[in-house]
Amino acid sequence: MTGIEILGYTAGAITSLTFLPQVIKTLKEKSAKDVSMMMFIIAVVNQTMWVVYGALLSNWVIILTNAVILSMSLTMIILKLRYSAKEDEKLSF
Amino acid sequence: MTGIEILGYTAGAITSLTFLPQVIKTLKEKSAKDVSMMMFIIAVVNQTMWVVYGALLSNWVIILTNAVILSMSLTMIILKLRYSAKEDEKLSF
Repeated sequence: MTGIEILGYTAGAITSLTFLPQVIKTLKEKSAKDVSMMMFIIAVVNQTMWVVYGALLSNWVIILTNAVILSMSLTMIILKLRYSAKEDEKLSF
Repeated sequence: MTGIEILGYTAGAITSLTFLPQVIKTLKEKSAKDVSMMMFIIAVVNQTMWVVYGALLSNWVIILTNAVILSMSLTMIILKLRYSAKEDEKLSF
């Protein structure tokens, strides 16, 4: 494996974990008022496209990386809806 | 251009805009208390790796896509620091 390949795989692995700190923070603080719902809706649509793209190419790195981000984005949407309902506030996108 | 290529380019273009709604929402509401700082720090490190990776491969699609996300992540860190200072709260990661 060349240095360039190692850099690419490492960057890909970190990409899949980008949303993790947000999920943890939101679960801990039970508030997601300042978090953009639209960001995660775009991410869900986008990651679904990436998973389909990976499936069409039979590329498991693309499928798995984006499936992880997809699941975290869906988790954030659920958390945002739950905490917004609790705060009885208008859903702010 | 095949259907698969079009799907890939479209997904790539949308990816670069994922953080845009968060930047707009934060600018509008002048608050980023619930937004994870760690998410954007990870994104900055990660996108820098992607830009270097794209440069090593001389791939302008990778360079440009990730440069856009990098600039939005840096913007969010600056906004988060500015509004956190104003709210006089402890920086919550």
